[in-house]
Amino acid sequence: MDKTAFKAYYDKQRKLVDGFLAARMEKKGISSVDEAMAYSLLAGGKRLRPVILMATAEALGQKGYNYLPMACGLEMIHTYSLIHDDLPCMDDDDYRRGRLTNHKVYGEAMALLAGDGLLTLAFEVMLEQKNVPPSALIQAVRETAMCAGNFGMVGGQALDLTYADRAVNAEELRKMHQGKTGALFIAAVRGGAVLAGASSEQLLALTKYADLLGLAFQITDDILDVTGTAAELGKPIGSDAKNHKSTYVSLYGLEAAEKLAEKTCEEALSCLDSFDEGADPLRHITQMLCNKRS
Amino acid sequence: MDKTAFKAYYDKQRKLVDGFLAARMEKKGISSVDEAMAYSLLAGGKRLRPVILMATAEALGQKGYNYLPMACGLEMIHTYSLIHDDLPCMDDDDYRRGRLTNHKVYGEAMALLAGDGLLTLAFEVMLEQKNVPPSALIQAVRETAMCAGNFGMVGGQALDLTYADRAVNAEELRKMHQGKTGALFIAAVRGGAVLAGASSEQLLALTKYADLLGLAFQITDDILDVTGTAAELGKPIGSDAKNHKSTYVSLYGLEAAEKLAEKTCEEALSCLDSFDEGADPLRHITQMLCNKRS
Repeated sequence: MDKTAFKAYYDKQRKLVDGFLAARMEKKGISSVDEAMAYSLLAGGKRLRPVILMATAEALGQKGYNYLPMACGLEMIHTYSLIHDDLPCMDDDDYRRGRLTNHKVYGEAMALLAGDGLLTLAFEVMLEQKNVPPSALIQAVRETAMCAGNFGMVGGQALDLTYADRAVNAEELRKMHQGKTGALFIAAVRGGAVLAGASSEQLLALTKYADLLGLAFQITDDILDVTGTAAELGKPIGSDAKNHKSTYVSLYGLEAAEKLAEKTCEEALSCLDSFDEGADPLRHITQMLCNKRS
Repeated sequence: MDKTAFKAYYDKQRKLVDGFLAARMEKKGISSVDEAMAYSLLAGGKRLRPVILMATAEALGQKGYNYLPMACGLEMIHTYSLIHDDLPCMDDDDYRRGRLTNHKVYGEAMALLAGDGLLTLAFEVMLEQKNVPPSALIQAVRETAMCAGNFGMVGGQALDLTYADRAVNAEELRKMHQGKTGALFIAAVRGGAVLAGASSEQLLALTKYADLLGLAFQITDDILDVTGTAAELGKPIGSDAKNHKSTYVSLYGLEAAEKLAEKTCEEALSCLDSFDEGADPLRHITQMLCNKRS
Protein backbone atom coordinates (compact mmCIF):
# COMPACT_ATOMS: atom_id res chain seq x y z
CA MET A 1 0.00 0.00 0.00
CA ASP A 2 1.58 3.28 -1.11
CA LYS A 3 0.80 6.71 0.21
CA THR A 4 -1.84 7.47 -2.41
CA ALA A 5 -3.62 4.19 -1.82
CA PHE A 6 -3.55 4.86 1.92
CA LYS A 7 -5.06 8.31 1.49
CA ALA A 8 -7.89 6.80 -0.53
CA TYR A 9 -8.27 4.04 2.06
CA TYR A 10 -8.44 6.50 4.95
CA ASP A 11 -10.96 8.72 3.20
CA LYS A 12 -13.15 5.72 2.48
CA GLN A 13 -13.05 4.52 6.10
CA ARG A 14 -13.77 7.98 7.40
CA LYS A 15 -16.77 8.28 5.12
CA LEU A 16 -18.05 4.91 6.32
CA VAL A 17 -17.86 6.20 9.88
CA ASP A 18 -19.50 9.51 8.99
CA GLY A 19 -22.26 7.68 7.19
CA PHE A 20 -22.90 5.25 10.03
CA LEU A 21 -22.99 8.01 12.63
CA ALA A 22 -25.33 10.19 10.57
CA ALA A 23 -27.67 7.28 9.94
CA ARG A 24 -27.67 6.24 13.61
CA MET A 25 -28.54 9.75 14.73
CA GLU A 26 -31.59 9.68 12.47
CA LYS A 27 -33.12 7.39 15.08
CA LYS A 28 -34.52 10.05 17.39
CA GLY A 29 -34.94 9.90 21.15
CA ILE A 30 -37.68 11.67 23.08
CA SER A 31 -36.21 15.17 23.41
CA SER A 32 -34.14 17.90 21.83
CA VAL A 33 -30.95 16.55 23.42
CA ASP A 34 -30.58 14.58 20.20
CA GLU A 35 -29.88 17.81 18.35
CA ALA A 36 -27.14 18.79 20.78
CA MET A 37 -25.64 15.31 20.55
CA ALA A 38 -25.65 15.39 16.75
CA TYR A 39 -24.14 18.88 16.64
CA SER A 40 -20.88 17.65 18.11
CA LEU A 41 -20.92 14.07 16.84
CA LEU A 42 -21.51 15.01 13.22
CA ALA A 43 -19.03 17.90 13.19
CA GLY A 44 -16.46 15.95 11.22
CA GLY A 45 -12.97 15.23 12.41
CA LYS A 46 -10.46 12.54 11.50
CA ARG A 47 -12.52 9.70 13.06
CA LEU A 48 -9.16 8.36 14.15
CA ARG A 49 -10.26 5.90 16.82
CA PRO A 50 -12.88 4.11 14.71
CA VAL A 51 -10.51 3.96 11.75
CA ILE A 52 -7.83 2.42 13.99
CA LEU A 53 -10.31 -0.17 15.25
CA MET A 54 -11.25 -1.15 11.71
CA ALA A 55 -7.63 -1.16 10.55
CA THR A 56 -6.74 -3.51 13.40
CA ALA A 57 -9.44 -5.94 12.30
CA GLU A 58 -7.93 -5.76 8.81
CA ALA A 59 -4.49 -6.58 10.19
CA LEU A 60 -6.12 -9.85 11.29
CA GLY A 61 -7.60 -10.58 7.88
CA GLN A 62 -11.14 -9.33 8.57
CA LYS A 63 -13.11 -6.57 6.87
CA GLY A 64 -13.06 -3.39 8.92
CA TYR A 65 -16.52 -2.27 7.87
CA ASN A 66 -18.00 -5.28 9.63
CA TYR A 67 -17.18 -3.60 12.93
CA LEU A 68 -18.75 -0.18 12.37
CA PRO A 69 -21.05 -0.30 15.45
CA MET A 70 -18.15 -1.03 17.78
CA ALA A 71 -15.93 1.51 15.99
CA CYS A 72 -18.53 4.27 16.04
CA GLY A 73 -19.23 3.71 19.74
CA LEU A 74 -15.62 4.77 20.34
CA GLU A 75 -16.18 7.97 18.38
CA MET A 76 -19.22 8.73 20.56
CA ILE A 77 -17.11 8.26 23.69
CA HIS A 78 -14.41 10.52 22.26
CA THR A 79 -17.00 13.17 21.36
CA TYR A 80 -18.71 13.13 24.77
CA SER A 81 -15.31 13.66 26.39
CA LEU A 82 -14.72 16.73 24.23
CA ILE A 83 -18.14 18.22 25.10
CA HIS A 84 -17.60 17.77 28.84
CA ASP A 85 -13.99 18.92 28.60
CA ASP A 86 -15.07 22.17 26.95
CA LEU A 87 -17.55 23.03 29.74
CA PRO A 88 -16.87 26.15 31.86
CA CYS A 89 -16.01 24.07 34.93
CA MET A 90 -13.33 22.25 32.89
CA ASP A 91 -11.39 24.00 30.11
CA ASP A 92 -14.07 26.64 29.41
CA ASP A 93 -13.50 26.65 25.67
CA ASP A 94 -15.66 28.65 23.27
CA TYR A 95 -14.51 27.01 20.05
CA ARG A 96 -13.77 23.47 18.93
CA ARG A 97 -12.69 22.68 15.37
CA GLY A 98 -13.61 26.21 14.35
CA ARG A 99 -17.21 25.97 15.56
CA LEU A 100 -18.81 27.14 18.78
CA THR A 101 -18.57 24.53 21.51
CA ASN A 102 -21.68 22.61 22.48
CA HIS A 103 -22.53 24.63 25.59
CA LYS A 104 -22.07 27.91 23.69
CA VAL A 105 -24.87 26.81 21.37
CA TYR A 106 -27.18 24.80 23.64
CA GLY A 107 -26.31 26.04 27.14
CA GLU A 108 -24.40 24.26 29.88
CA ALA A 109 -27.21 22.04 31.12
CA MET A 110 -28.07 20.70 27.68
CA ALA A 111 -24.37 20.22 26.81
CA LEU A 112 -23.91 18.22 30.01
CA LEU A 113 -26.84 16.02 28.99
CA ALA A 114 -25.59 15.75 25.41
CA GLY A 115 -22.32 14.34 26.74
CA ASP A 116 -24.14 11.96 29.06
CA GLY A 117 -26.39 10.93 26.19
CA LEU A 118 -23.49 10.22 23.84
CA LEU A 119 -21.60 8.19 26.44
CA THR A 120 -24.73 6.12 27.05
CA LEU A 121 -25.59 5.77 23.37
CA ALA A 122 -22.04 4.56 22.74
CA PHE A 123 -22.73 1.44 24.78
CA GLU A 124 -26.09 0.89 23.16
CA VAL A 125 -24.53 1.11 19.70
CA MET A 126 -21.51 -1.06 20.52
CA LEU A 127 -23.86 -3.75 21.82
CA GLU A 128 -25.73 -3.67 18.50
CA GLN A 129 -22.61 -5.16 16.89
CA LYS A 130 -23.58 -8.29 14.93
CA ASN A 131 -21.68 -11.24 13.44
CA VAL A 132 -19.20 -11.69 16.25
CA PRO A 133 -19.23 -14.27 19.06
CA PRO A 134 -21.34 -12.82 21.92
CA SER A 135 -18.59 -13.54 24.44
CA ALA A 136 -16.07 -11.59 22.30
CA LEU A 137 -18.47 -8.64 22.11
CA ILE A 138 -18.93 -8.68 25.89
CA GLN A 139 -15.16 -8.68 26.37
CA ALA A 140 -14.56 -5.89 23.86
CA VAL A 141 -17.26 -3.60 25.28
CA ARG A 142 -16.25 -4.31 28.89
CA GLU A 143 -12.63 -3.46 28.08
CA THR A 144 -13.77 -0.30 26.32
CA ALA A 145 -15.65 0.76 29.46
CA MET A 146 -12.52 0.12 31.48
CA CYS A 147 -10.42 2.20 29.07
CA ALA A 148 -12.96 5.04 29.09
CA GLY A 149 -13.59 5.23 32.85
CA ASN A 150 -11.71 5.77 36.09
CA PHE A 151 -9.06 3.24 35.06
CA GLY A 152 -8.49 5.09 31.79
CA MET A 153 -9.72 8.31 30.20
CA VAL A 154 -11.79 9.72 33.07
CA GLY A 155 -8.97 8.79 35.47
CA GLY A 156 -6.47 10.62 33.26
CA GLN A 157 -8.64 13.71 33.15
CA ALA A 158 -8.90 13.62 36.94
CA LEU A 159 -5.10 13.37 37.18
CA ASP A 160 -4.90 16.41 34.91
CA LEU A 161 -7.10 18.35 37.37
CA THR A 162 -4.91 17.22 40.24
CA TYR A 163 -1.79 18.34 38.40
CA ALA A 164 -3.28 21.64 37.23
CA ASP A 165 -1.24 23.92 39.42
CA ARG A 166 2.14 22.31 39.43
CA ALA A 167 4.82 20.86 37.21
CA VAL A 168 4.80 17.10 36.86
CA ASN A 169 7.62 14.62 36.41
CA ALA A 170 8.06 12.25 33.48
CA GLU A 171 6.33 9.36 35.21
CA GLU A 172 3.30 11.45 36.16
CA LEU A 173 3.07 12.90 32.66
CA ARG A 174 3.15 9.44 31.12
CA LYS A 175 0.49 8.11 33.50
CA MET A 176 -1.79 11.08 32.84
CA HIS A 177 -1.53 10.73 29.06
CA GLN A 178 -1.90 6.95 29.17
CA GLY A 179 -5.26 7.65 30.75
CA LYS A 180 -6.38 10.76 28.88
CA THR A 181 -5.49 9.68 25.37
CA GLY A 182 -3.69 6.35 25.41
CA ALA A 183 -6.53 4.34 26.90
CA LEU A 184 -8.91 4.97 23.99
CA PHE A 185 -6.18 3.95 21.53
CA ILE A 186 -5.88 0.71 23.45
CA ALA A 187 -9.66 0.31 23.38
CA ALA A 188 -9.64 0.85 19.61
CA VAL A 189 -6.86 -1.62 18.89
CA ARG A 190 -7.94 -4.28 21.38
CA GLY A 191 -11.59 -3.85 20.43
CA GLY A 192 -10.81 -4.55 16.78
CA ALA A 193 -8.48 -7.39 17.72
CA VAL A 194 -10.85 -9.14 20.10
CA LEU A 195 -13.78 -8.95 17.67
CA ALA A 196 -11.62 -10.17 14.79
CA GLY A 197 -10.54 -13.20 16.79
CA ALA A 198 -6.91 -12.38 17.56
CA SER A 199 -4.78 -15.06 19.20
CA SER A 200 -3.32 -14.24 22.60
CA GLU A 201 0.09 -13.63 21.00
CA GLN A 202 -1.43 -11.23 18.47
CA LEU A 203 -3.40 -9.50 21.21
CA LEU A 204 -0.24 -9.00 23.24
CA ALA A 205 1.70 -7.52 20.32
CA LEU A 206 -1.20 -5.25 19.37
CA THR A 207 -1.71 -4.03 22.94
CA LYS A 208 1.94 -3.05 23.13
CA TYR A 209 1.58 -1.40 19.73
CA ALA A 210 -1.43 0.63 20.93
CA ASP A 211 0.35 1.81 24.05
CA LEU A 212 3.35 3.01 22.03
CA LEU A 213 1.11 4.58 19.39
CA GLY A 214 -0.66 6.61 22.08
CA LEU A 215 2.66 7.74 23.50
CA ALA A 216 4.05 8.71 20.08
CA PHE A 217 0.82 10.55 19.33
CA GLN A 218 1.10 12.56 22.54
CA ILE A 219 4.78 13.47 22.19
CA THR A 220 4.20 14.52 18.58
CA ASP A 221 1.24 16.60 19.69
CA ASP A 222 3.36 18.36 22.30
CA ILE A 223 6.01 19.03 19.64
CA LEU A 224 3.46 20.39 17.18
CA ASP A 225 2.10 22.71 19.89
CA VAL A 226 5.56 24.26 20.04
CA THR A 227 6.60 24.18 16.41
CA GLY A 228 3.19 25.48 15.42
CA THR A 229 2.63 23.17 12.47
CA ALA A 230 -0.26 21.41 14.12
CA ALA A 231 -2.14 19.58 11.44
CA GLU A 232 -5.53 18.73 12.86
CA LEU A 233 -4.93 15.07 13.58
CA GLY A 234 -7.76 14.52 15.99
CA LYS A 235 -5.99 16.38 18.76
CA PRO A 236 -6.45 14.83 22.19
CA ILE A 237 -8.52 16.57 24.81
CA GLY A 238 -6.82 19.33 26.72
CA SER A 239 -3.81 18.92 24.48
CA ASP A 240 -2.97 22.59 24.30
CA ALA A 241 -0.99 22.28 27.50
CA LYS A 242 -2.63 25.32 28.94
CA ASN A 243 -3.78 23.48 32.06
CA HIS A 244 -0.52 22.05 33.22
CA LYS A 245 2.99 23.26 33.03
CA SER A 246 4.64 20.13 31.78
CA THR A 247 4.76 18.62 28.31
CA TYR A 248 7.21 16.24 26.70
CA VAL A 249 8.91 19.27 25.18
CA SER A 250 9.15 21.17 28.47
CA LEU A 251 10.45 18.06 30.26
CA TYR A 252 12.95 16.84 27.66
CA GLY A 253 13.56 19.80 25.37
CA LEU A 254 12.47 19.97 21.72
CA GLU A 255 15.30 17.97 20.19
CA ALA A 256 15.15 15.12 22.70
CA ALA A 257 11.36 15.05 22.43
CA GLU A 258 11.65 14.70 18.65
CA LYS A 259 14.07 11.82 19.06
CA LEU A 260 11.81 10.18 21.63
CA ALA A 261 8.81 10.52 19.29
CA GLU A 262 10.75 8.92 16.43
CA LYS A 263 12.03 6.09 18.61
CA THR A 264 8.57 5.43 20.03
CA CYS A 265 7.09 5.43 16.57
CA GLU A 266 9.65 2.88 15.37
CA GLU A 267 9.00 0.69 18.40
CA ALA A 268 5.28 0.84 17.69
CA LEU A 269 5.86 -0.20 14.09
CA SER A 270 8.09 -3.07 15.17
CA CYS A 271 5.18 -4.53 17.16
CA LEU A 272 3.52 -5.10 13.78
CA ASP A 273 6.45 -7.06 12.33
CA SER A 274 4.72 -10.42 12.62
CA PHE A 275 1.70 -9.20 10.66
CA ASP A 276 1.40 -9.37 6.87
CA GLU A 277 0.37 -6.63 4.44
CA GLY A 278 -3.10 -6.60 6.03
CA ALA A 279 -1.46 -4.44 8.70
CA ASP A 280 -0.39 -1.82 6.13
CA PRO A 281 -3.25 0.54 7.05
CA LEU A 282 -2.13 0.42 10.70
CA ARG A 283 1.45 1.07 9.60
CA HIS A 284 0.42 4.10 7.55
CA ILE A 285 -1.77 5.41 10.38
CA THR A 286 1.21 5.13 12.71
CA GLN A 287 3.38 7.15 10.37
CA MET A 288 0.63 9.68 9.82
CA LEU A 289 0.28 10.23 13.56
CA CYS A 290 4.01 10.52 13.99
CA ASN A 291 3.93 13.15 11.27
CA LYS A 292 6.42 11.35 9.10
CA ARG A 293 6.29 10.93 5.37
CA SER A 294 4.52 7.71 4.53
CA MET B 1 -44.70 -13.28 52.69
CA ASP B 2 -46.04 -10.97 55.40
CA LYS B 3 -44.92 -7.45 56.12
CA THR B 4 -42.30 -8.45 58.68
CA ALA B 5 -40.80 -11.04 56.37
CA PHE B 6 -40.70 -8.47 53.57
CA LYS B 7 -38.91 -5.92 55.75
CA ALA B 8 -36.28 -8.53 56.58
CA TYR B 9 -36.07 -9.49 52.90
CA TYR B 10 -35.62 -5.89 51.76
CA ASP B 11 -32.95 -5.19 54.38
CA LYS B 12 -31.05 -8.27 53.30
CA GLN B 13 -31.17 -7.34 49.63
CA ARG B 14 -30.11 -3.81 50.37
CA LYS B 15 -27.16 -5.03 52.38
CA LEU B 16 -26.14 -7.32 49.52
CA VAL B 17 -26.12 -4.30 47.22
CA ASP B 18 -24.23 -2.13 49.70
CA GLY B 19 -21.67 -4.90 50.17
CA PHE B 20 -21.17 -5.46 46.46
CA LEU B 21 -20.79 -1.75 45.75
CA ALA B 22 -18.32 -1.23 48.59
CA ALA B 23 -16.25 -4.23 47.52
CA ARG B 24 -16.26 -3.14 43.86
CA MET B 25 -15.06 0.35 44.77
CA GLU B 26 -12.08 -1.19 46.57
CA LYS B 27 -10.69 -1.84 43.09
CA LYS B 28 -9.01 1.50 42.55
CA GLY B 29 -8.51 3.38 39.29
CA ILE B 30 -5.58 5.67 38.54
CA SER B 31 -6.73 8.89 40.18
CA SER B 32 -8.60 10.51 43.04
CA VAL B 33 -11.85 10.52 41.03
CA ASP B 34 -12.47 7.15 42.70
CA GLU B 35 -12.94 8.92 46.01
CA ALA B 36 -15.52 11.31 44.57
CA MET B 37 -17.33 8.38 42.92
CA ALA B 38 -17.40 6.40 46.18
CA TYR B 39 -18.60 9.42 48.18
CA SER B 40 -21.93 9.45 46.35
CA LEU B 41 -22.23 5.77 45.50
CA LEU B 42 -21.65 4.55 49.05
CA ALA B 43 -23.86 7.18 50.69
CA GLY B 44 -26.64 4.71 51.36
CA GLY B 45 -30.16 5.04 50.07
CA LYS B 46 -32.90 2.52 49.44
CA ARG B 47 -31.07 0.78 46.55
CA LEU B 48 -34.51 0.54 45.01
CA ARG B 49 -33.55 -0.18 41.41
CA PRO B 50 -31.13 -3.04 42.15
CA VAL B 51 -33.60 -4.56 44.63
CA ILE B 52 -36.35 -4.41 41.97
CA LEU B 53 -34.06 -6.12 39.45
CA MET B 54 -33.30 -8.92 41.89
CA ALA B 55 -36.94 -9.25 42.96
CA THR B 56 -37.95 -9.61 39.31
CA ALA B 57 -35.51 -12.48 38.88
CA GLU B 58 -37.09 -14.08 41.95
CA ALA B 59 -40.55 -13.73 40.44
CA LEU B 60 -39.17 -16.00 37.71
CA GLY B 61 -37.84 -18.58 40.16
CA GLN B 62 -34.21 -17.46 40.16
CA LYS B 63 -32.04 -16.24 43.04
CA GLY B 64 -31.77 -12.46 43.00
CA TYR B 65 -28.25 -12.37 44.40
CA ASN B 66 -26.99 -14.10 41.26
CA TYR B 67 -27.57 -10.83 39.40
CA LEU B 68 -25.73 -8.40 41.67
CA PRO B 69 -23.37 -7.05 38.95
CA MET B 70 -26.26 -6.16 36.67
CA ALA B 71 -28.31 -4.80 39.60
CA CYS B 72 -25.47 -2.68 40.97
CA GLY B 73 -24.74 -1.22 37.53
CA LEU B 74 -28.21 0.29 37.69
CA GLU B 75 -27.43 1.89 41.04
CA MET B 76 -24.29 3.42 39.54
CA ILE B 77 -26.34 4.89 36.70
CA HIS B 78 -28.88 6.26 39.19
CA THR B 79 -26.09 7.77 41.30
CA TYR B 80 -24.31 9.42 38.36
CA SER B 81 -27.61 11.04 37.37
CA LEU B 82 -27.98 12.50 40.85
CA ILE B 83 -24.44 13.92 40.83
CA HIS B 84 -24.91 15.60 37.44
CA ASP B 85 -28.42 16.75 38.36
CA ASP B 86 -27.10 18.50 41.48
CA LEU B 87 -24.48 20.50 39.53
CA PRO B 88 -24.82 24.30 39.42
CA CYS B 89 -25.79 24.29 35.74
CA MET B 90 -28.65 21.90 36.55
CA ASP B 91 -30.52 22.05 39.89
CA ASP B 92 -27.66 23.64 41.83
CA ASP B 93 -28.30 21.70 45.02
CA ASP B 94 -26.03 21.90 48.05
CA TYR B 95 -27.39 18.90 49.91
CA ARG B 96 -28.49 15.39 48.99
CA ARG B 97 -29.73 12.93 51.58
CA GLY B 98 -28.52 15.25 54.33
CA ARG B 99 -24.93 15.38 53.07
CA LEU B 100 -23.15 17.95 50.94
CA THR B 101 -23.54 17.25 47.23
CA ASN B 102 -20.60 15.89 45.32
CA HIS B 103 -19.48 19.18 43.77
CA LYS B 104 -19.72 20.96 47.13
CA VAL B 105 -17.08 18.54 48.42
CA TYR B 106 -14.90 17.88 45.37
CA GLY B 107 -15.57 20.86 43.11
CA GLU B 108 -17.55 21.01 39.89
CA ALA B 109 -14.92 19.57 37.58
CA MET B 110 -14.27 16.52 39.74
CA ALA B 111 -18.00 15.98 40.30
CA LEU B 112 -18.56 16.06 36.55
CA LEU B 113 -15.85 13.41 36.15
CA ALA B 114 -17.21 11.37 39.07
CA GLY B 115 -20.56 11.19 37.26
CA ASP B 116 -18.89 10.28 33.98
CA GLY B 117 -16.82 7.67 35.78
CA LEU B 118 -19.83 6.07 37.47
CA LEU B 119 -21.81 5.92 34.23
CA THR B 120 -18.86 4.25 32.52
CA LEU B 121 -18.14 1.90 35.41
CA ALA B 122 -21.80 0.85 35.40
CA PHE B 123 -21.31 -0.72 31.98
CA GLU B 124 -18.05 -2.35 32.97
CA VAL B 125 -19.69 -3.90 36.04
CA MET B 126 -22.84 -5.02 34.25
CA LEU B 127 -20.70 -6.76 31.65
CA GLU B 128 -18.92 -8.66 34.46
CA GLN B 129 -22.21 -10.51 35.09
CA LYS B 130 -21.56 -14.25 35.03
CA ASN B 131 -23.73 -17.37 34.76
CA VAL B 132 -26.17 -16.00 32.21
CA PRO B 133 -26.29 -16.68 28.45
CA PRO B 134 -23.99 -14.11 26.77
CA SER B 135 -26.73 -13.13 24.33
CA ALA B 136 -29.12 -12.43 27.23
CA LEU B 137 -26.50 -10.25 28.91
CA ILE B 138 -25.94 -8.30 25.70
CA GLN B 139 -29.68 -7.71 25.38
CA ALA B 140 -30.10 -6.66 29.03
CA VAL B 141 -27.18 -4.22 28.98
CA ARG B 142 -28.15 -2.80 25.58
CA GLU B 143 -31.71 -2.19 26.81
CA THR B 144 -30.34 -0.60 29.97
CA ALA B 145 -28.30 1.82 27.85
CA MET B 146 -31.42 2.65 25.87
CA CYS B 147 -33.40 3.29 29.08
CA ALA B 148 -30.62 5.45 30.52
CA GLY B 149 -29.89 7.57 27.44
CA ASN B 150 -31.62 9.94 25.05
CA PHE B 151 -34.49 7.48 24.62
CA GLY B 152 -35.01 7.34 28.39
CA MET B 153 -33.54 9.06 31.42
CA VAL B 154 -31.28 11.61 29.70
CA GLY B 155 -34.11 12.36 27.27
CA GLY B 156 -36.50 12.93 30.18
CA GLN B 157 -34.06 15.27 31.86
CA ALA B 158 -33.72 17.21 28.62
CA LEU B 159 -37.52 17.46 28.38
CA ASP B 160 -37.51 18.81 31.92
CA LEU B 161 -35.09 21.55 30.84
CA THR B 162 -37.30 22.35 27.88
CA TYR B 163 -40.35 22.58 30.11
CA ALA B 164 -38.61 24.58 32.83
CA ASP B 165 -40.37 27.86 32.26
CA ARG B 166 -43.89 26.80 31.48
CA ALA B 167 -46.75 24.62 32.65
CA VAL B 168 -47.06 21.27 30.89
CA ASN B 169 -50.09 19.21 30.03
CA ALA B 170 -50.80 15.68 31.24
CA GLU B 171 -49.30 14.04 28.18
CA GLU B 172 -46.07 16.05 28.41
CA LEU B 173 -45.81 15.36 32.14
CA ARG B 174 -46.24 11.62 31.58
CA LYS B 175 -43.64 11.56 28.80
CA MET B 176 -41.12 13.49 30.88
CA HIS B 177 -41.51 11.20 33.89
CA GLN B 178 -41.48 8.07 31.76
CA GLY B 179 -38.02 9.20 30.72
CA LYS B 180 -36.68 10.70 33.93
CA THR B 181 -37.74 7.98 36.34
CA GLY B 182 -39.84 5.37 34.55
CA ALA B 183 -37.14 4.24 32.14
CA LEU B 184 -34.79 3.01 34.89
CA PHE B 185 -37.67 1.06 36.48
CA ILE B 186 -38.20 -0.59 33.13
CA ALA B 187 -34.47 -1.30 32.88
CA ALA B 188 -34.53 -2.87 36.35
CA VAL B 189 -37.54 -5.09 35.69
CA ARG B 190 -36.63 -6.07 32.14
CA GLY B 191 -32.96 -6.53 33.09
CA GLY B 192 -33.90 -9.02 35.80
CA ALA B 193 -36.45 -10.69 33.55
CA VAL B 194 -34.17 -11.08 30.53
CA LEU B 195 -31.31 -12.48 32.62
CA ALA B 196 -33.63 -14.87 34.45
CA GLY B 197 -34.91 -16.24 31.16
CA ALA B 198 -38.45 -14.82 31.04
CA SER B 199 -40.75 -16.02 28.26
CA SER B 200 -42.05 -13.37 25.87
CA GLU B 201 -45.44 -13.42 27.63
CA GLN B 202 -43.79 -12.90 31.02
CA LEU B 203 -41.61 -10.14 29.59
CA LEU B 204 -44.66 -8.37 28.21
CA ALA B 205 -46.53 -8.53 31.54
CA LEU B 206 -43.48 -7.39 33.49
CA THR B 207 -42.77 -4.49 31.12
CA LYS B 208 -46.33 -3.25 31.58
CA TYR B 209 -45.90 -3.72 35.32
CA ALA B 210 -42.71 -1.63 35.32
CA ASP B 211 -44.29 1.19 33.35
CA LEU B 212 -47.22 1.37 35.78
CA LEU B 213 -44.92 1.07 38.79
CA GLY B 214 -42.92 4.06 37.58
CA LEU B 215 -46.09 6.08 37.07
CA ALA B 216 -47.49 5.16 40.51
CA PHE B 217 -44.12 6.02 42.04
CA GLN B 218 -44.14 9.45 40.44
CA ILE B 219 -47.72 10.35 41.31
CA THR B 220 -47.14 9.24 44.90
CA ASP B 221 -43.99 11.32 45.01
CA ASP B 222 -45.88 14.39 43.81
CA ILE B 223 -48.53 13.76 46.48
CA LEU B 224 -45.92 13.35 49.23
CA ASP B 225 -44.29 16.62 48.16
CA VAL B 226 -47.60 18.32 48.95
CA THR B 227 -48.73 16.39 51.99
CA GLY B 228 -45.24 16.65 53.43
CA THR B 229 -44.99 13.08 54.66
CA ALA B 230 -42.21 12.22 52.27
CA ALA B 231 -40.58 9.08 53.48
CA GLU B 232 -37.23 8.83 51.71
CA LEU B 233 -38.18 6.21 49.15
CA GLY B 234 -35.36 6.80 46.74
CA LYS B 235 -36.86 10.01 45.48
CA PRO B 236 -36.46 10.51 41.76
CA ILE B 237 -34.18 13.19 40.44
CA GLY B 238 -35.58 16.68 40.35
CA SER B 239 -38.67 15.43 42.10
CA ASP B 240 -39.13 18.49 44.24
CA ALA B 241 -41.06 20.12 41.45
CA LYS B 242 -39.11 23.33 41.79
CA ASN B 243 -38.08 23.36 38.15
CA HIS B 244 -41.43 23.06 36.50
CA LYS B 245 -44.84 24.25 37.39
CA SER B 246 -46.76 21.08 36.81
CA THR B 247 -47.10 17.96 38.93
CA TYR B 248 -49.79 15.31 39.06
CA VAL B 249 -51.25 17.18 42.02
CA SER B 250 -51.25 20.57 40.29
CA LEU B 251 -52.77 19.03 37.16
CA TYR B 252 -55.43 16.83 38.73
CA GLY B 253 -55.85 18.14 42.28
CA LEU B 254 -54.84 16.23 45.41
CA GLU B 255 -57.86 13.98 45.70
CA ALA B 256 -57.90 12.92 42.06
CA ALA B 257 -54.13 12.37 42.14
CA GLU B 258 -54.55 10.08 45.15
CA LYS B 259 -57.20 8.09 43.32
CA LEU B 260 -55.03 7.91 40.21
CA ALA B 261 -52.08 6.66 42.27
CA GLU B 262 -54.21 3.96 43.88
CA LYS B 263 -55.68 2.86 40.56
CA THR B 264 -52.27 2.78 38.91
CA CYS B 265 -50.87 0.78 41.80
CA GLU B 266 -53.68 -1.77 41.48
CA GLU B 267 -53.14 -2.04 37.75
CA ALA B 268 -49.44 -2.62 38.33
CA LEU B 269 -50.19 -5.38 40.83
CA SER B 270 -52.64 -7.01 38.43
CA CYS B 271 -49.82 -7.41 35.90
CA LEU B 272 -48.29 -9.84 38.39
CA ASP B 273 -51.44 -12.02 38.64
CA SER B 274 -50.01 -14.82 36.55
CA PHE B 275 -46.92 -15.12 38.79
CA ASP B 276 -46.74 -17.32 41.88
CA GLU B 277 -45.52 -16.41 45.37
CA GLY B 278 -42.03 -15.84 43.96
CA ALA B 279 -43.40 -12.44 42.92
CA ASP B 280 -44.33 -11.53 46.51
CA PRO B 281 -41.25 -9.32 46.94
CA LEU B 282 -42.26 -7.37 43.82
CA ARG B 283 -45.82 -7.08 45.17
CA HIS B 284 -44.56 -5.74 48.50
CA ILE B 285 -42.22 -3.31 46.77
CA THR B 286 -45.14 -2.04 44.73
CA GLN B 287 -47.20 -1.41 47.83
CA MET B 288 -44.25 0.17 49.60
CA LEU B 289 -43.76 2.61 46.74
CA CYS B 290 -47.44 3.42 46.61
CA ASN B 291 -47.20 4.15 50.32
CA LYS B 292 -49.94 1.73 51.20
CA ARG B 293 -50.00 -0.66 54.13
CA SER B 294 -48.57 -3.96 53.07
